[in-house]
Amino acid sequence: MHNDMGVIDLGSNTARLVIYQQDAQGLVYELDNIKRGLRLSSHLQDGRLDPAGWEKTMACMRQFRDILAAHQVSKVIGVATAAVRQAENGGELIKSIEAETGITMRVLSGEEEARYGYLAVMHTMNLSEGITVDIGGGSTELTYFADRKLQHCVSFPFGIVTLTRLFLHQDPPAPGEVTSLRDFLITQFQTCDWLRDKACPVIAIGGTARNLAKMHQRSTGYSLGSLHHYQLSADTVQNILAATLSLPLEERKQLPGLSKDRADVILSGLSVFDTLLTLSGGKELIVSNKGLRDGVLYEAVWGPALPPDATAVRKRSIEQFMQRYRIDKKHAEHVRDLALSLFDQLVDGGILPYSDAERDFLEAAALLHDAGRSINVYEVSEHTFYLLSNVLLWGYTHRQRLLIAMIASYKNNKLLLQQVATHADILSKSDKGTAEKLGMLVQLARSLDRTMMQQIKQVQLEIGEKETLLHCYGTKPSLIEYDLLEETVQKAAKAWKKPVRVFVHSSLTHS
Amino acid sequence: MHNDMGVIDLGSNTARLVIYQQDAQGLVYELDNIKRGLRLSSHLQDGRLDPAGWEKTMACMRQFRDILAAHQVSKVIGVATAAVRQAENGGELIKSIEAETGITMRVLSGEEEARYGYLAVMHTMNLSEGITVDIGGGSTELTYFADRKLQHCVSFPFGIVTLTRLFLHQDPPAPGEVTSLRDFLITQFQTCDWLRDKACPVIAIGGTARNLAKMHQRSTGYSLGSLHHYQLSADTVQNILAATLSLPLEERKQLPGLSKDRADVILSGLSVFDTLLTLSGGKELIVSNKGLRDGVLYEAVWGPALPPDATAVRKRSIEQFMQRYRIDKKHAEHVRDLALSLFDQLVDGGILPYSDAERDFLEAAALLHDAGRSINVYEVSEHTFYLLSNVLLWGYTHRQRLLIAMIASYKNNKLLLQQVATHADILSKSDKGTAEKLGMLVQLARSLDRTMMQQIKQVQLEIGEKETLLHCYGTKPSLIEYDLLEETVQKAAKAWKKPVRVFVHSSLTHS
Repeated sequence: MHNDMGVIDLGSNTARLVIYQQDAQGLVYELDNIKRGLRLSSHLQDGRLDPAGWEKTMACMRQFRDILAAHQVSKVIGVATAAVRQAENGGELIKSIEAETGITMRVLSGEEEARYGYLAVMHTMNLSEGITVDIGGGSTELTYFADRKLQHCVSFPFGIVTLTRLFLHQDPPAPGEVTSLRDFLITQFQTCDWLRDKACPVIAIGGTARNLAKMHQRSTGYSLGSLHHYQLSADTVQNILAATLSLPLEERKQLPGLSKDRADVILSGLSVFDTLLTLSGGKELIVSNKGLRDGVLYEAVWGPALPPDATAVRKRSIEQFMQRYRIDKKHAEHVRDLALSLFDQLVDGGILPYSDAERDFLEAAALLHDAGRSINVYEVSEHTFYLLSNVLLWGYTHRQRLLIAMIASYKNNKLLLQQVATHADILSKSDKGTAEKLGMLVQLARSLDRTMMQQIKQVQLEIGEKETLLHCYGTKPSLIEYDLLEETVQKAAKAWKKPVRVFVHSSLTHS
Repeated sequence: MHNDMGVIDLGSNTARLVIYQQDAQGLVYELDNIKRGLRLSSHLQDGRLDPAGWEKTMACMRQFRDILAAHQVSKVIGVATAAVRQAENGGELIKSIEAETGITMRVLSGEEEARYGYLAVMHTMNLSEGITVDIGGGSTELTYFADRKLQHCVSFPFGIVTLTRLFLHQDPPAPGEVTSLRDFLITQFQTCDWLRDKACPVIAIGGTARNLAKMHQRSTGYSLGSLHHYQLSADTVQNILAATLSLPLEERKQLPGLSKDRADVILSGLSVFDTLLTLSGGKELIVSNKGLRDGVLYEAVWGPALPPDATAVRKRSIEQFMQRYRIDKKHAEHVRDLALSLFDQLVDGGILPYSDAERDFLEAAALLHDAGRSINVYEVSEHTFYLLSNVLLWGYTHRQRLLIAMIASYKNNKLLLQQVATHADILSKSDKGTAEKLGMLVQLARSLDRTMMQQIKQVQLEIGEKETLLHCYGTKPSLIEYDLLEETVQKAAKAWKKPVRVFVHSSLTHS
C-alpha cells in the first residue's frame, strides 16, 4: 500500500504539485513534479488578483485535485506565497479553492517563507554559516544562519516579476535603468544590518538560481548535470550579469541553459544575487535546488527538529539512498565495517595517513558500493558510478560526491582513468590517488563478503618488516571467499608495498 | 515472498551458481552469479576424475549449498557437462554430491548440452538461421538451425583445455603445432556434412567467445559494454587469432580484455572459431552471452516451447524490462498507442514513409520511455538512455538497441547529438534523423499523457494544405495536458513542416 503525499506550492510565478512516496522507514521519494507557470504577480491589479489570474488559479487547482485523486493521494499540504499574501482578495481565493477542491492552502508569511528555505538548506547541505536568498515572482526572502541556527530572516515585497516591471523597460535595459535597480536593491538590503560584511557563502534558492547554474554549466561544458550545490564565484556572477544585460530579449532567449519563459525576468534576478554578494562580502554563490516546498515537506515528515550537524545530514541521505536502490543492508554494513577496520589498522601501522574526510568518504562508499545492482548484476561497478555521480547525496559537494562514486565503484585502473578523464573539470589532481587507495579497501572488503553472508567476521592486519599478514576470522576454514581472494590480495600487496599473506582462522581467537 | 531459483552449471572449466528471482508474472532476474575455476578437465587421469579434482568439486558444491541455504533458495537445478560425463567415476561423484549436499545434479549428454545452447540463442536473439558453437573445457557443441528450428547437433569430446594439452606445447606455439591443431579440427568438423558451406552466421557461446569480444572491444575502444550480440567479421577473427598466436603466454596475459586465467587456452578456442567459419563459409561471428545455463533456466521457467519468432522474443524482453524497472504499464501502453496512431496517420498523410522496422522501434521506445524514472524523477531522459543502452534487450542488435534508446529518451537536439557522438562507432549516418523523427512522436505522445491518467483518449490528425490540425479527444475540455502542449506541438510543426493547431474535443465525436 502506497503512502503518498502531495505538496502544492502556489507561488507568485509558478504553481507546482509534487507527489512524494513515503516508505515504511519514513523516507520520502519524489514520484512526480508538475508545474504550471501562472505568473500571479502580474495579475495583481491595484492590490487585487484580477479575474483572469483568479480563474487560471482555480483551473490549475482543479487539475491538481484531479491528479491527486487519480493517484489516490489523500494527504496534501498546500502553501501559497507572496502573490496570494499580497492580494487583498487572497483570503477569498483560498476559501474558494477549499470549497471547490477540498484542498486547504496555508498562506505563508514572508518570514515563514524565508524559514522554509533555510530549513531546506539545513536538511541537504553541509554549511554551518550562510545567507540564503530565495527570489520568487513577487517577493524575495533572505535569512542569515550561523552555527546552523537561524539568526535573522526577512521578506521583501518585490521579486523578479515586480522588479522587472518597476525598473527595466528598455530592451536591452538602459544603463540608467540598471543603476536605478541596483540603487533600489542596495537601499532595501541596507535596512538589514545583519547582511553586511558577513563574508559567508550566499545560498541561492529558486528558479533564477537554477537558471544561472544551467547557463554557467552550459557555457563551461560542466561534466555533471547536478544543480544542487553548484558553486559560482562572486566574480563569475558579476560577469554573467554584465554579459546578459547587454543582450536584447530575443538574444537572451537563445542563451543555452536559460528557459525561454524566464528570459525577460532573469536580469532583475541576477541583479539581486550580485548586489547581495557585494553587500555581504560573500565570495561565492552556492545554488540550492531544494527550497520552500522541500522545507515544507521535510517539516511535515520529520518534524521541526533539524539535523544537528553535517554528519546527520549525510547519514540520512545515505540511508535514503540505500533504501531507494534496495541495497542489502546487512552486507553493506558488513563491508563498511571491514573496510573501516582495514583503514584504521593501516593508519595505526603507518601505511596510510589518517584523514577524517577520507574515512567519511570510505564509509559512505562502502555502504553504497552495491547500488548498481539495482540496475543489473552485470557491470555493477559502472552502474554504481552512474547512480552515485548522478543522484543527489545530501551534504556533499559535487567533487566529494564524485570521489565517493569513484571509491564505491573502484574495479581497476582503466575504469578509474575513464572516470577521472570525464570529470577532470571538477576533480583535483590528488583525487585519483585517493580513489584508488580507498577504492581498493572497498574492493577487498567486498571480496571478503563475496557471498553477502558475513562469513568472514573480522580481519586483522599484522604488518611486519617484510610482509603483511591478513588474518581472517571466519565461520569455517573453507569459504568461497578465501578461494576468490587472490586477485584483490595481490592488488593490496602492490598498494601497501609489501607482500600480503592470508591466514585463515575458523574461530575468533588468533591461533 | 521471494521465489528464488538456483542454477548450478558444473562445467569442465568452471563451476557456476546463478541465483534468479522469479516474479509473480513468471519473469526472472539474475540476482547473483558466483563462479569458481575448477578446471575439472585437467583432473581427468586415465578417464577418471582424480582425488584432487573430486575434493575441489565437493568443496565447491558444499559452498554452493551454504549460499543457497543462506538465500533460502529451495528450487535448484543442477547440470554437469563434459568432464563429469567423460569421467568413469562421474556417476559416483553425482551420488556423493547428492548425499552430502542434497543437490541433484543431472549429467547432460553432449546433444542435450548442444540443444541448451541453441535454446538460449532462440530465446534471446533475432536469428532464423545459424550455427552455434559452445566451447567448454572438455567438449565442444555445435548445432545448426534454420527457420529457428534445430536441424542438427553434435558434441565433440574435446574443448579448450584438452586441445591445448594435445597440440600446443611450445610458447608461443610452433607453426607446426598450429597446423596440426587446425588439421585435426578440420578432420573432426568434416564428419558433419551439414556444417559445410552454410554461409550463415556462427553464434559463439561461452567464455572463449566472451573473451574474444572483450579483446576486440578493448582494441577498438567500442562504445558499449555489451557482449551479447557483438558481431565480428570472419576476417577479424582470423586476424585476432594470428596476432594472438605470435605472442608468448606472458604477453598474452597482458592483452586488454583477456582474462589472465584464460591466456593459456585462448589459442585453441580461437582456432575452433576460425576453422568453423572457414568450413561453414560464415562471414560473421556473433557472440552470445547466453548459453547452457540460460537455456536450462528458460526451459525450467517457460517450458519446452520456443518463442515462435523474433517479435515474440522482443516482446517478452520488453515486458521483462518494464517489470524490472517498474514502469507504469497503463501509461506506457497509452503512450505507445498514441505514438503509433500518430505514426500511422502521418504515414497515411504522406508525411512519413512507412517502415516496419521503424514502427517496431517506435513501439518499443514508447513502452520503455519512462524506464529512467526508476532511477530518479530528475533527468529522466538521461536515465532512460543509460538504462536502455546498457541493459540487454533481447532480439535487438547493439545498433537497434541504441536507436530505441535514443528514440525513447528524445528530449532535444543537444542530448541527441551527445548520444550520437558517443556511439558514432555503432550508429549509421541516418540514425540521428530516425531518432529525431520518431523521438519527437514519443515526446508528443508523452505530453498528451503528462499526468499519466490517460485523460486524452485519442488523437486525430487532419493534414491540410497549409496546416495540420491535431484533434484531441479528452475526458474534459480543461486538462493540464492541453496547457503544457505548446512546446512539443511547436516541435512537431517544425518536423512536419506545417503549422500545427490543437483542437480540443471533450467527447469522441469529431465536433
